Amino acid sequence: MAATFWLDGHWTDEAPRLTGPADHSFWQSSVIFDGARAIAGLAPDLDLHCRRAIASAHAMALKPGIAAEEIERLAIEGIRRFPRDAVLYIKPVFYAAGGMISADSATTAFVLHIFEAPLPGAGGFSATLSPLRRPAPEMAPTDAKAACLYPNSDRATREANGRGFDHAVMRDPWDNIAEFAFANLMLVKGGRVLTPAANGTFLAGITRRRVMALLNEAGTEAVEAKLTAQDLHDADEIFSCGNYGKVVACTRFEDRQLNAGPVFTEARRRYFAWAEGSRVN
Amino acid sequence: MAATFWLDGHWTDEAPRLTGPADHSFWQSSVIFDGARAIAGLAPDLDLHCRRAIASAHAMALKPGIAAEEIERLAIEGIRRFPRDAVLYIKPVFYAAGGMISADSATTAFVLHIFEAPLPGAGGFSATLSPLRRPAPEMAPTDAKAACLYPNSDRATREANGRGFDHAVMRDPWDNIAEFAFANLMLVKGGRVLTPAANGTFLAGITRRRVMALLNEAGTEAVEAKLTAQDLHDADEIFSCGNYGKVVACTRFEDRQLNAGPVFTEARRRYFAWAEGSRVN
Repeated sequence: MAATFWLDGHWTDEAPRLTGPADHSFWQSSVIFDGARAIAGLAPDLDLHCRRAIASAHAMALKPGIAAEEIERLAIEGIRRFPRDAVLYIKPVFYAAGGMISADSATTAFVLHIFEAPLPGAGGFSATLSPLRRPAPEMAPTDAKAACLYPNSDRATREANGRGFDHAVMRDPWDNIAEFAFANLMLVKGGRVLTPAANGTFLAGITRRRVMALLNEAGTEAVEAKLTAQDLHDADEIFSCGNYGKVVACTRFEDRQLNAGPVFTEARRRYFAWAEGSRVN
Repeated sequence: MAATFWLDGHWTDEAPRLTGPADHSFWQSSVIFDGARAIAGLAPDLDLHCRRAIASAHAMALKPGIAAEEIERLAIEGIRRFPRDAVLYIKPVFYAAGGMISADSATTAFVLHIFEAPLPGAGGFSATLSPLRRPAPEMAPTDAKAACLYPNSDRATREANGRGFDHAVMRDPWDNIAEFAFANLMLVKGGRVLTPAANGTFLAGITRRRVMALLNEAGTEAVEAKLTAQDLHDADEIFSCGNYGKVVACTRFEDRQLNAGPVFTEARRRYFAWAEGSRVN
């Protein structure tokens, strides 16, 4: 089974077609989602991802008709529909079916999509500073994991790919480093882990917070900071934190090779060790 | 008939359901659209709207499998499916069905949606300066009429509504007036018409360009300018230009009442007089 979907009170393994051009979400992007993972039965921070889906919906003036705890319960039910060793992406989605100019929040609908998606390998992506940026909070609903934020990340990634890099590093409007186009960013300098200070221009993620906490508990200082491109040039290590790949090493920034270093290795090891406590299947 | 849809080579009057959570456009907003009008058989600038749909698709790295001329031909065919006095919104849409992180441009699909939507009346909306802004071109795909740009306009409109106003005036990142949340903006000062200079932060629309040309031909100077909120406070008249409502008067800005003045009246009259030449049904 490649995917399963929960909607309208039942599970189906056939991809449903839910919206078309007459639906607000189809052409005006009144959609939020979240992404969690199940990795051979481990579902780290699943509760937080479900709660964030609800928070994102409210931030977009959608009205979720389901509670975070119920999404979590359904996600676990869905995970158990797959083989125990399956590696899954867990995606709750809220969208507004109705509305003409404004989304009609009363038409908010929910679907849960769970599908097989292998984890990227632990190491080795290249990255470059993007000419594209994250928007300021008054220029886009940056307080939600909103569908509408993704075309610019996609555009940044295509631009980076066109110059021979795997991933794009995006700045905020004021030239601070914000994140990778699709994951949060951490760098290591002199044994300390620094990550861009959450200033509302990017989603300061659940995996980012978890990794920071695990590092700090282990005695490796991990803190927020105002970072510039120069900090990336000067970094001893760079890695990404995000739900999709969890903790992944950046092994080239611009023309400089980097190692998958000891702090990255420790962060990744500690994350997966901690995740052992999140078994649901 | 309230609506008709062209897809997969045929017309249907039933709203199609085309995408679901497994489709890239559904959860990552890889969607563009355009909006034209047919007003009792008149379809002003239909050719330009169809061409812009193609341009928007390319700007979003979608690959349209249909030419602008063919969209126009289909739109006229669709208009003729309605009564001759119908007032219609004509909406071609391109979307990427496939892709995981990046949209897969090879899966670009097309649907044309035509539906009955009355024109707003000629006069009398209130407006307020929004705390929300249009993004800079590097912060969103502002060179496309992209679905992803609309949630922030929606948010701005809700915020304005919450303070008792019909519409929001949005600034660009540098404090210049950009446009209304859902239409371009013009003001009149000392007999001249001024409209925010196209600087890539908003779609400088087809109706805007048409109205400027008609005014200039008639001897009323209509030019682009760098405008601030103060210019709105000092304006003799303010009106909107956009496809949905065409030319509509703003009769209150903040706490100041404005008249649907002589330049607005002339602009609207000339637009509809010119539109008489665009009959397709």
